Amino acid sequence: MAQTTPNHTQTVFGWAAHDSSGKITPFTFKRRENGVDDVTIEILYCGMCHTDLHHVRNDWGITMYPVVPGHEITGVITKVGSNVTRFKMGDRVGVGCIAASCLDCEFCKESQENYCDKVQFVYNGIFWDGSITYGGYSKMLVAHQRFVVHVPEKLPMDGAAPLLCAGITVFCPMKDNKMLESPGKKLGVVGLGGLGHVAIKFAKAFGLHVTVISTSPSKEKEAKDRLGVDDFLLSTNSEHMQAARRSLDFIIDTVSAKHSLGPILELLKVNGTLVMVGAPDKPVELPSFPLIFGKRVVKGSMIGGMKETQEMLELCAKHNITCDVEIVTPDKINEAMDRLARNDVRYRFVIDVAGRTPESR
Amino acid sequence: MAQTTPNHTQTVFGWAAHDSSGKITPFTFKRRENGVDDVTIEILYCGMCHTDLHHVRNDWGITMYPVVPGHEITGVITKVGSNVTRFKMGDRVGVGCIAASCLDCEFCKESQENYCDKVQFVYNGIFWDGSITYGGYSKMLVAHQRFVVHVPEKLPMDGAAPLLCAGITVFCPMKDNKMLESPGKKLGVVGLGGLGHVAIKFAKAFGLHVTVISTSPSKEKEAKDRLGVDDFLLSTNSEHMQAARRSLDFIIDTVSAKHSLGPILELLKVNGTLVMVGAPDKPVELPSFPLIFGKRVVKGSMIGGMKETQEMLELCAKHNITCDVEIVTPDKINEAMDRLARNDVRYRFVIDVAGRTPESR
Repeated sequence: MAQTTPNHTQTVFGWAAHDSSGKITPFTFKRRENGVDDVTIEILYCGMCHTDLHHVRNDWGITMYPVVPGHEITGVITKVGSNVTRFKMGDRVGVGCIAASCLDCEFCKESQENYCDKVQFVYNGIFWDGSITYGGYSKMLVAHQRFVVHVPEKLPMDGAAPLLCAGITVFCPMKDNKMLESPGKKLGVVGLGGLGHVAIKFAKAFGLHVTVISTSPSKEKEAKDRLGVDDFLLSTNSEHMQAARRSLDFIIDTVSAKHSLGPILELLKVNGTLVMVGAPDKPVELPSFPLIFGKRVVKGSMIGGMKETQEMLELCAKHNITCDVEIVTPDKINEAMDRLARNDVRYRFVIDVAGRTPESR
Repeated sequence: MAQTTPNHTQTVFGWAAHDSSGKITPFTFKRRENGVDDVTIEILYCGMCHTDLHHVRNDWGITMYPVVPGHEITGVITKVGSNVTRFKMGDRVGVGCIAASCLDCEFCKESQENYCDKVQFVYNGIFWDGSITYGGYSKMLVAHQRFVVHVPEKLPMDGAAPLLCAGITVFCPMKDNKMLESPGKKLGVVGLGGLGHVAIKFAKAFGLHVTVISTSPSKEKEAKDRLGVDDFLLSTNSEHMQAARRSLDFIIDTVSAKHSLGPILELLKVNGTLVMVGAPDKPVELPSFPLIFGKRVVKGSMIGGMKETQEMLELCAKHNITCDVEIVTPDKINEAMDRLARNDVRYRFVIDVAGRTPESR
């Protein structure tokens, strides 16, 4: 596979990691010409997802260096291909995790491109032309129109960026499992970070009772005061966990570190569902007893399809849901990565790629 | 807790393990008087479930010795309490895993007694009167009528016994997940033993395409020739496993040893479901990638409710489904346990408690 192919004629400035140290440095590379189905986007903001950290450090053993991370991208259209009808110059748009899919399978036909067996991601993927994809830690992106969404006017471009991954990742399982139409039901959110805090915002917008399950007692106050969480369970307190047995209808587990699902599953009612949306690099431990004794369900879910992503953004605009972000300038990416590794962020770092945020300059 | 209580006046002969060596020896004990809601059953046959092995050896650390195992019981009614209307003297009946439940919760009210939070099992449980329950490795049982089912005339008492646990354990998840009304769908059965072979019989009766996934190449021929299995996948052959990616609609995992779900989950289509019905004493490994990339589902399921158990037996009678059993005399229980530990049985040992099977005398 080639990093670039002959049609890669546009010079782009970005930031890349070059080895498993994960250190990110300025990096100039080429992107493809804007094809007939492509749009070119001037990138304004790019969120920093935990997945970026896994990739730059090669935690999953699949990184193709140099890697330009970033799949929570907002920006403005600067060029449209001749087949493009949904977008015009100047449109505010977003790009998430997907760069390409087969466009022809049952999943692509139903806009579940995320489950296409040939899905390729916006960085560290292989595009149709054989080139390696480079993500949003860069000034400009060329994207196939299929994988671009409109950002509603009401949403700020910085706080909207992480919706393209963190937002859609928690929105889809909540929608699939009817949590957005079940006011009063009891939701548990495991891990209060980039994904967890957006899940809480959706849950509160749709009338759910929310319990945060966390290993950090320090998060209780802010969870309740800032995010309106109803209950807080310290997962290390077995007495409290025991008292909460069989109390929750649904759990979103956002933790991307190895952990046991046993004590968490016990919190679910019989027939209750836990959805894993984090991607621990080591297998999690699944004890059989809480699973079988409670007829419980563990599901996976990965981002969302393009129609769902657009739908989610419209709902966010309607309900004033954006991510709580800390804006960082590109020269502070490494520092932010180190803090991200320690979960020291409230709740998502967003890179001010174009220098648009006054206080970040 | 008491092993027996003052109302325990009936002397019963049985077989018990007395320590974690798991060695089973003759054991005389007391059972309660036949209460107004009870029936007394002369036990004819009792299946030997893998759970019995876990209990006699205290693999789960919960055994109360002496333990009289056995929860796959068939026999004949010899006494009925004054409130009992569903049974009369001489009725052919079965008793499975459940001895008691609260009878009052939402699950009991829907005959999902198996998910009652106060469910107590037919051995190594605590009955309402505070006594420890003793199971079917014995000559006689007193059971609350709620937890007794009729064995249809058409079913042999020996081949029907394991249906009370092995049968209902695989029947319920197949029914719950609409596998009994989806001819042509592709079912995977992991592990070809007591549970697996009954799952295959249900699957073939209801028109499913069946793939057995096993670590034992020696089982391929018998799976195909004897049970009519359509495909056989050797789970240790990664090439074959890879070729079968995304091919199955549903998987029943009957393995009760620790294992990784990763390679098995990859066999499921997107949105496919794996149900765990084995109970490994150590947590299984659940890698997140096959779960989230395929939006797959891992569910637990534990035996079934009493109405479902009766329904299952009627369906077995209708479709001529019985377990393939090896009959053993009570003096061969230890030998059978040792063979069970090595999975050396086709496919379930059944103890001829009353000496009714000529060739076993």
